[in-house]
Amino acid sequence: MPDHVQPTVDVPALLAVLDGPYAGIRELTRKHLVEHAQILDDQIGLDTDTFRERVLEVVKEMAATGSLGVGFPTQYGGGGDIGASVAGFETMALGDLSVLVKVGVHFGLFGGAILHLGSQEHHDAYLADLVTADLLGCFAMTESGHGSNVQALGTTATYDADAGEFVITTPDQASRKDYIGNAARHADMAVVFAQLEIGGESEGVHAFVVPIRDAHGKPLPGVTIEDDGPKLGLNGVDNGRLSFDAVRVPRANLLNRYADVSEDGTYSSPIDNRGRRFFTMLGTLVQGRVCVGGAGINAAKVALTIAVKYALFRRQFGEPGGGEELLLDYGMHQRRLFPLLARTYALHFAQEVLALELHEVFSSEEVVGDEEAERRRRALESRAAGTKALGTWHATRTIQECREACGGAGYLSVNRFAALKADTDVFTTFEGDNHVLMQLVAKGLLTDYASSFEDLDQLGMVRFVAGLAVETVVERTAAHKLLERIKDVLPGGDDDWDQESGLLDPNYQLAMLRWREEHMLSGVARRLKRGMAGDQDAVQVFSQSQDHVIGAARAHVERLVLEAFVDKVAAQPAGDNRVALGLLCDLFALSAIEADRGWFMEHGRLSSQRAKAITREVGSLCRLVRPLAEDLVDAFGVPTEMLHAELLTPLQQA
Amino acid sequence: MPDHVQPTVDVPALLAVLDGPYAGIRELTRKHLVEHAQILDDQIGLDTDTFRERVLEVVKEMAATGSLGVGFPTQYGGGGDIGASVAGFETMALGDLSVLVKVGVHFGLFGGAILHLGSQEHHDAYLADLVTADLLGCFAMTESGHGSNVQALGTTATYDADAGEFVITTPDQASRKDYIGNAARHADMAVVFAQLEIGGESEGVHAFVVPIRDAHGKPLPGVTIEDDGPKLGLNGVDNGRLSFDAVRVPRANLLNRYADVSEDGTYSSPIDNRGRRFFTMLGTLVQGRVCVGGAGINAAKVALTIAVKYALFRRQFGEPGGGEELLLDYGMHQRRLFPLLARTYALHFAQEVLALELHEVFSSEEVVGDEEAERRRRALESRAAGTKALGTWHATRTIQECREACGGAGYLSVNRFAALKADTDVFTTFEGDNHVLMQLVAKGLLTDYASSFEDLDQLGMVRFVAGLAVETVVERTAAHKLLERIKDVLPGGDDDWDQESGLLDPNYQLAMLRWREEHMLSGVARRLKRGMAGDQDAVQVFSQSQDHVIGAARAHVERLVLEAFVDKVAAQPAGDNRVALGLLCDLFALSAIEADRGWFMEHGRLSSQRAKAITREVGSLCRLVRPLAEDLVDAFGVPTEMLHAELLTPLQQA
Repeated sequence: MPDHVQPTVDVPALLAVLDGPYAGIRELTRKHLVEHAQILDDQIGLDTDTFRERVLEVVKEMAATGSLGVGFPTQYGGGGDIGASVAGFETMALGDLSVLVKVGVHFGLFGGAILHLGSQEHHDAYLADLVTADLLGCFAMTESGHGSNVQALGTTATYDADAGEFVITTPDQASRKDYIGNAARHADMAVVFAQLEIGGESEGVHAFVVPIRDAHGKPLPGVTIEDDGPKLGLNGVDNGRLSFDAVRVPRANLLNRYADVSEDGTYSSPIDNRGRRFFTMLGTLVQGRVCVGGAGINAAKVALTIAVKYALFRRQFGEPGGGEELLLDYGMHQRRLFPLLARTYALHFAQEVLALELHEVFSSEEVVGDEEAERRRRALESRAAGTKALGTWHATRTIQECREACGGAGYLSVNRFAALKADTDVFTTFEGDNHVLMQLVAKGLLTDYASSFEDLDQLGMVRFVAGLAVETVVERTAAHKLLERIKDVLPGGDDDWDQESGLLDPNYQLAMLRWREEHMLSGVARRLKRGMAGDQDAVQVFSQSQDHVIGAARAHVERLVLEAFVDKVAAQPAGDNRVALGLLCDLFALSAIEADRGWFMEHGRLSSQRAKAITREVGSLCRLVRPLAEDLVDAFGVPTEMLHAELLTPLQQA
Repeated sequence: MPDHVQPTVDVPALLAVLDGPYAGIRELTRKHLVEHAQILDDQIGLDTDTFRERVLEVVKEMAATGSLGVGFPTQYGGGGDIGASVAGFETMALGDLSVLVKVGVHFGLFGGAILHLGSQEHHDAYLADLVTADLLGCFAMTESGHGSNVQALGTTATYDADAGEFVITTPDQASRKDYIGNAARHADMAVVFAQLEIGGESEGVHAFVVPIRDAHGKPLPGVTIEDDGPKLGLNGVDNGRLSFDAVRVPRANLLNRYADVSEDGTYSSPIDNRGRRFFTMLGTLVQGRVCVGGAGINAAKVALTIAVKYALFRRQFGEPGGGEELLLDYGMHQRRLFPLLARTYALHFAQEVLALELHEVFSSEEVVGDEEAERRRRALESRAAGTKALGTWHATRTIQECREACGGAGYLSVNRFAALKADTDVFTTFEGDNHVLMQLVAKGLLTDYASSFEDLDQLGMVRFVAGLAVETVVERTAAHKLLERIKDVLPGGDDDWDQESGLLDPNYQLAMLRWREEHMLSGVARRLKRGMAGDQDAVQVFSQSQDHVIGAARAHVERLVLEAFVDKVAAQPAGDNRVALGLLCDLFALSAIEADRGWFMEHGRLSSQRAKAITREVGSLCRLVRPLAEDLVDAFGVPTEMLHAELLTPLQQA
C-alpha cells in the first residue's frame, strides 16, 4: 500500500459524510443552537437560579418546534424516528450542556421510561404533553446509598389491595433519590424505581409514575424535595433529592409493560426469571447511554475546533527576528492534538454504527422469548455501554488537553473550555459509571450475550466462567470468530502477519486489535478459572482480575471503533476526502497500538523495531495532518457562535 | 531482598516525617486554615464580587499574624526563612486555593520581585507594608499576545532623561498585561516588565514599580484596568488586564539590582551579556515555581484523602445477601488510587529536596560571575521547573481520578472536588507552561547548566548541540555520571543487571530510571545532530525532536523524584513506618517503570517476562497498601475541616 499523498479536503462534502443519514435533523439542531446562542453568555453571567429558568425556557422553546420529540410516536406529536432523535441530541452537545442534559432527563430518561416501560394507557396519558414539554418529568432511579447497583435500591412500593394503590416509601437516608435532574425545581412528575412488595413478598425493582408537584410547583403531600445545590458544572440543571413518606399512587401508575399487578394483588409477567425481567426493563433504557456517549464525542469536537484554530493563529518563540512560530508547527503540539482529532473521527463513526443499530432494534417489534432477538439487544446494550465509556473518557481527556494547549486564555470563562470541562466532567460517571459499564461489556463477551445469563452478577460470572474449559469460553464468546477473521484478511497466517504487512495496511491494524482482544479475553477466562481452582473465594478472584476484565472490554470496544472507521473509509468514493479520512484512520489505529505497545511486545506480537517504526509513523502522520487540520475541524460543523472563544479574535498588534 | 511484611503505621510519626524540618510553620498554617474554614463554604455560596472581598479579608487576617511574610528579611517584619515560607505556602494549598493564589501573587510574585530585583531603597520603601499586606501588589509580566516568551514582551519603558522618568506604554492590544492576579480590584501597585528604551536603543526587558491605583482604589491617570471576568476556577482572585498610556514613574522605580540607568541615561549592569542578564533576573523568581509545584502536590493530598476515605465507607455490589463490598476492596479501585498515592509521597519528598536547595541557594550571598555558584542556580531553576511540571500534572490527574472514584457525589460542590478541580486546573499552564518548562529542563541537561548558554533559545540549543560530537554532549551533560553510578550500585555490570536484581531492589529501580534518562538524552543529541546534518532548518529539526526533548526531561525529573524517595526511606530508622514508606517507594518506582515499559522493552532493557512480572508486582503492592491506606492518607495531615466532604458523612441506613 502506497504512502499517503497530501490531499485537499472538500469541507462541505466531509461534513456531509459526518452528518450521515441524519443531515436534516443535525442541520436543524445547529440552526436552533445558533438562535439560542445567548445561552452561552447566560451560562457565564447569570446566577444559578436565573440560569436554571433560562435553560428551562430554551428547552421549552426548542420543544415547541417539535425537534426534541422526534423519537416519539407520530400519534403523540413525535417524529417516529429513533435514529433522528439520537442524531439531534448528539448535535445539541455542541451547545450549552445544561440545556442538553435537561433535554436528556426529560425526553430521554423520563420520556423513554414512559415509552418503553409503560403501555398504551400511559402513552395516551402522558406522551403528548411530554413531547411539548408542557408536562415535565424526572427519572428517579439513583439513591444516595445506591448508585450503580440498581437491584439493591431501598425505596419501596407496597401494594395495598384494599385501596388498589401503591404506597411509595423512602425507608432511610441511604434510599433518598439523589442527583435527580429536574427534581429540585421543575419536574411535575417522576418515574420512581422502587422495590415492589405485595403481601410481604418482594418482586424486585419496578418503575412507577409518581406526581411530585402540584400545579403551582409546590411539592405534593408526603413528597420531600431537597436541592443538591451548586455543582462542578451543569448548574442550569436543577438536581435534587426526593423522599417519599407513604405517597399513594393508583395501581395504574405501575409502568406495566413487563410486569403487572392485578386488582387483587396478583403479580404477573411475560418473563419468568426475575433477574432477566429486571435487566430486560433496564435494557429498554439503553438510548440514554447511546446519547451520553454521542454527547461526549461532540463536546470533544468543540474543544478541538477551538484548540486547533487557536494554534493556527497564536505564535510563540521562533527565529530571532524571523517572527514567532505558529503553535501548530511545533511537533509536540501536533502530537498532543492530532491523535485526539483522529480518535474523535473514529468515535464519531463508531457512534453512527451504534445509533443505527439502536434505531433498527427499537424500530422493530419486540418479541419476548426470541433468543436471537434478545441476543441482539444484549449486544446492543454492550456496545452502547462500551461506546459511552470510551466516548466520555475521550471527552474528558480531549477537553483537558485542549484547555492546556490554549494556556491562560483557555482558563477564562469567556472562552468555552471552562463550561465544556465542568459540564462534561460528570459524563464519565453518570448514566452508568464507566468502569461498571466496562464490566458489563466483559460479561457480555464472556457469556456471548445469552439472555439466560442476564442476571449473573460479577461473582456469578466468575463462577460461571470458572466452570467451563477455557477453550469453551473462547469458543462460546464473541471473540471466537476473531482469529479466523485475522487469518482471512492476512493469508500469511498467524505467525508472520505482524512482520510482513505494512503499518498503513488497515488489515494489519485490525488484526492487531483483534488479536489483542481475543488474547485478553482468553486471559481473563484462564485467570478466573485458575483463581477459583485455588483457595480464593469469588470476591477475591474478581477483585484481582478486575483490571484484566476491564482491559479486555476496552480492547473489544476499541476494535469495534477501528472497524467502524475502516468500513467508513472503504465506503467512500475515491478522492481526496477518502485519502484524508484514511490518514486519520491510520493515525487513530497506530496511535492506539502505540499507546499499548508495551502489551503487544510483552505478548510477542510486536518486535521492538516495529514498535519504534510505529512511533515514527505516528509522527509522520501528524505532519501530514498538519496542513489539513483546519479543514478537518471545520468539517465537524461546529457553528462559530458555539465556539464562544474570545481567544480566536485577532489582537491588534504593532 | 525479602518481600515486604505487613507493617502497622504510626500516623503521628509519619506525619512528622512528611512535615520534615518545617513542622512548626506547617502546623501553624493548618491551624490558620481551620480557623478560616468558613472560606470553603463561601467559595460555594458567595457571588464573585463578595467572594473576592472575603478572600482579601482572609489574606489580610493571615498576614496580620506574620505567618505569610516569613520569607522576608526580619528587619521588615519577616521571618528571614525562605524554606519556612515555601513550607507554609505549600500547606496553604490544603485550604481554599483562591486564598493561596492571592497570597502567591502578592507575597511571592510581587514581593519576590521587589526583594530580588530591587535594591535596599526599594526594600526600605515597600517591604514592611507589603509584609503586613497594607500595600498590595501585582506582578505584570504576561501579556495577551506574549505568554511563555517573556523576551518578546511589547510593553515599553522609555527613559526621559530631561524629566528623569520612565514612560511606560502599552503599544497595542497584544501587549496588554493580561491574567494579572490582584489587578482587577485590589492591587495598589504593579511590578511591570517592559522593554527598556534609552535614546532609541533597546536594552531588553526590565522590571519597574508602577503605582496603578490611588488611595480610593481608583485607577491612576493613564492606567486602564479591565477585569478578566469569570474563570474556570480561582474566582476569588481578581485577575485583570492593565494598559499604560504614557504613564510616568521616577527613575528610582527601576528595580535596579542587575541593571541601572543613571540620571543622564547611561545604562550599566554587572552582567555584560544581555541574554544572561535577563535570565539571571528571571532566575531570581524561581521561588514562584517551587511554590506552585508544592501547591499541586498538596492539593492532590486533599483529593486522595477524600477518595480513600470514601472508598472505605461506600459499599457496592458483592455477594447476594452478604452485603455489598467496600469500594476499596475492588482491585481496580486500588489500581486507580494507590499508584497515585505512592507518587504523591514521592513528589512530596522530591519537593522537600528542592525547597531545601532553594533555601540554601537564596540564603547565601550571591556572587555574580562565580561559575560554580551560577551553575548551581541554573540547576536549581531546572529542578524547580521539572518538579513544578510533574507536580501540577500529577495534581490534575489525581484530582480527576479521585472525583471519578467518588461518582456523582464527587460532582456536587458540597464536596471538595469541584473546587479542587477547577482551582488547580490552571497550575499546569501558569508560572510557566509545563511543556515549555520541560524544554528548559532539557536545555539545562544538554548544556550542563553553564550560565554561558543561558541565553540560548531552543533553536540556539539545536545549533549548539548539533555542533558537538554526541559523546561530547553526553560527557558534558549531567547524565554522564549516571552510567557510572549504575555500575557502582549493581556490580553485575551493564549487561545483566536488569535480569539479576530483584524488582524490589531500589538499586535496580534507580538503575532503570538512570539508564532511561541517559539513553533518551543521548538520543536527543543524536537526533539534533542528524537533523542539522540533513537539509532541514533548525526550526524543523526542533519541531520534529520536541517530543523527544520533553521525554528526556521527564525521564530526568522522574529519576530525581525516585532518588529523593529512596534517600528518604534509607534515612528512616528501622521500623514499621520505614517498611510502609519502602512499600510506597516500590509502588511508585514500579508503576513508573510499568507505565513506560514499552520504551524499556523497545530499548532492550526489559524482557517481556520481566515486564509482566512488574505488572504483577504492582498488583501485589496495591494489595499490601490496602490495609494501610487510611493511615497513609491520615499522615498527610489534611485537617478534617479542609476535606469539606459531605460524602464522608454516614447515611442513616435501614
